[in-house]
Amino acid sequence: MKALLIIGDGMADRPLKELGWKTPLEVARKPSMNHLASVGVCGIMDIIAPGVPPGSDTATLALLGYDAFHVYSGRGAFEALGWGIKVLDSDVCFRCNFATIDENFMVLDRRAGRIADADAAKLAESLKAIKISAPLVKFLFANTVQHRAVLVLRGSKLSSAISDSDPGTVGEKVLEIKPLDESVEAKFTAGILNELTQKFHEILKEHPVNKERVARGQPPANIILLRGAGTLPKIKPIGEIYGVDATCVAATSLIRGVCKTAGMHLLDVEGATGTAQTNYMAKAKAAVKALEKSDFVLLHVKAPDVASHDGNIKQKVEVIEKIDRMLAYILNKADLGETYVTLTADHTTSCVTGNHEGDPVPLAIMGPYVRGDDVEEFGERTCAKGGLGRLKGKDLMPILMNFLGKVKKFGA
Amino acid sequence: MKALLIIGDGMADRPLKELGWKTPLEVARKPSMNHLASVGVCGIMDIIAPGVPPGSDTATLALLGYDAFHVYSGRGAFEALGWGIKVLDSDVCFRCNFATIDENFMVLDRRAGRIADADAAKLAESLKAIKISAPLVKFLFANTVQHRAVLVLRGSKLSSAISDSDPGTVGEKVLEIKPLDESVEAKFTAGILNELTQKFHEILKEHPVNKERVARGQPPANIILLRGAGTLPKIKPIGEIYGVDATCVAATSLIRGVCKTAGMHLLDVEGATGTAQTNYMAKAKAAVKALEKSDFVLLHVKAPDVASHDGNIKQKVEVIEKIDRMLAYILNKADLGETYVTLTADHTTSCVTGNHEGDPVPLAIMGPYVRGDDVEEFGERTCAKGGLGRLKGKDLMPILMNFLGKVKKFGA
Repeated sequence: MKALLIIGDGMADRPLKELGWKTPLEVARKPSMNHLASVGVCGIMDIIAPGVPPGSDTATLALLGYDAFHVYSGRGAFEALGWGIKVLDSDVCFRCNFATIDENFMVLDRRAGRIADADAAKLAESLKAIKISAPLVKFLFANTVQHRAVLVLRGSKLSSAISDSDPGTVGEKVLEIKPLDESVEAKFTAGILNELTQKFHEILKEHPVNKERVARGQPPANIILLRGAGTLPKIKPIGEIYGVDATCVAATSLIRGVCKTAGMHLLDVEGATGTAQTNYMAKAKAAVKALEKSDFVLLHVKAPDVASHDGNIKQKVEVIEKIDRMLAYILNKADLGETYVTLTADHTTSCVTGNHEGDPVPLAIMGPYVRGDDVEEFGERTCAKGGLGRLKGKDLMPILMNFLGKVKKFGA
Repeated sequence: MKALLIIGDGMADRPLKELGWKTPLEVARKPSMNHLASVGVCGIMDIIAPGVPPGSDTATLALLGYDAFHVYSGRGAFEALGWGIKVLDSDVCFRCNFATIDENFMVLDRRAGRIADADAAKLAESLKAIKISAPLVKFLFANTVQHRAVLVLRGSKLSSAISDSDPGTVGEKVLEIKPLDESVEAKFTAGILNELTQKFHEILKEHPVNKERVARGQPPANIILLRGAGTLPKIKPIGEIYGVDATCVAATSLIRGVCKTAGMHLLDVEGATGTAQTNYMAKAKAAVKALEKSDFVLLHVKAPDVASHDGNIKQKVEVIEKIDRMLAYILNKADLGETYVTLTADHTTSCVTGNHEGDPVPLAIMGPYVRGDDVEEFGERTCAKGGLGRLKGKDLMPILMNFLGKVKKFGA
């Protein structure tokens, strides 16, 4: 037996006035999702805990069966891992933005006009020569997509108990990074990061790429904003816990990083971009193919979350309908006599607030030995009447692995 | 007010192709169970946690209100207690099998042809004279039913952190018992057990009973396989927690041992055997009678689990129908104005896999002040729609004791 877990990122929503107080899932045309719900067993999940809005990283940890409250150690390491950097246990990692500041370090644009990859790459290259004054600490810096980048601090006596330099909004000054506890390590690390921020700025502000950008009327990428200090979480790989081979099909580096930490294989899929224009069918094909070799496959689609953050209701509905056609392909091609297919969301993202919200998400599992229920439609409200009741996100993985006969009996 | 808890061991199942994708409970003729469900309040329970297959011992601990994850300390002590041995806090106990090995210690039959009690008793008697080389350690050995036996190691400096000698399958060699941690005690205990295993074998292989067995064409019981090292769990008796008098009606020694540990009275019922041929009515009568004296009575029927482990679907349905007639007697004879009657299973046992599975179990409670719901049939899927929702196993006991007014208010 195998298990496929399909996650529509931020696919759940609240009822919207624009949709006659229905949710995007409720109004979307989704025959395959409804089929899954009607032959399967449904429920709702509090991914972290009732009312708590999950991050994308903690949500994925929970859906892989980990207790995120206990194991989460910041976002940074997942970003670095997801981008292919080999992260060490002692590394402290950051999610970074190329951004634009004025001469008083006031943030004018947190994304430096969503700088193109080519410009960002040249700027990143120029930062490599920088030396940190502390002799035993090195850094790795890599631009990823557009304004996004990762920073890895490597050495001994480092701590992730430090604050962000990213103020989170324009119109505020770049923040001084401060230790968040009394340790020598936190003070030491904060000092290094403030030094690096200054040195990055000195090189960036004079860089020819930025002079060209200004000449073209684009905002210069003259600062690196840091946030989400994180270390590798101490978790057992899925393979060790359940004795299964596990594969991740996802484009978003944060999700890839979490799956990598859990010991999963990462597939690269042509045309999978983490945007609304991603190649849904290529991902579906890759997932079905991965099921030949792996016992457990996670298929993550970022698009509904992107639409929700933009408050784009119409796009969210369209994207859900595309996921439904992706699911149709999967239900046609997968060996359904041998496969448990599960559909859920990692969190509710509200098209009104544009934020992750703590409302529960719908869940449907179909497969040979599920106890099917009366639910005939996949949605936030219909699934709440299902046979699974209300679960926690971290319960899903043992439930799936139990169907695969991979959960050890507790007791005799 | 009183409470009767009826546990059908392994009574829940997954939908079975042979039953038109219904479960044995769903197809069984069970008017009394359905009556209980329709006048009562229903729900489903994860006995340990969602997806986690419970053992019979951890499941019973949970159903008695204990947090099995915290208190469980192995199977052995329950087996010994259930057989009537007075177990001390410092004892380390084992579930044992009389088994058959060849000259290379390869296991040929893990049950020595399900050796008859009379043979096993004579063999057990001959082992009593053995002396352990460690001067301060003694052992008690008792055959129980057929090939089953218990071993209690008594002395100071003993540890239960040791591995089994039972390889669990035929065709493998008897395992050397090894310490599972770095302690002196674990190493010491493992040494004693390897010595005992050798000394048992030396006596058994030359024993006249075994020579007669071989002459009759039966496999000789020439080794004792050990597993499930356990000590008494540190738990408060039910009487102390809730101030109730509690009684157990069960034939299976493992279940009797758990109930004994929880401070319950153990009833011996004529004809109660722990098999499909057990005297259901005698158990029902004993339970109703026990309710005159006790506030809480647990009535355990092993039969559905036995049928499931054998993959015998027809027998499982029949056994459920017998339990239904047992319930009919109880509903006729008990004082229903004064009694909460509860029916559930301790775990799902699949007739397909023959194993305990982590799927939830159905639950129904009837009694004067329950908030009845719309459920009209007792089953895995119908109960999922009930008014109790989805509970954990350890929640049931406080719920029942609350109806009896026996749960202390928390706060002022």
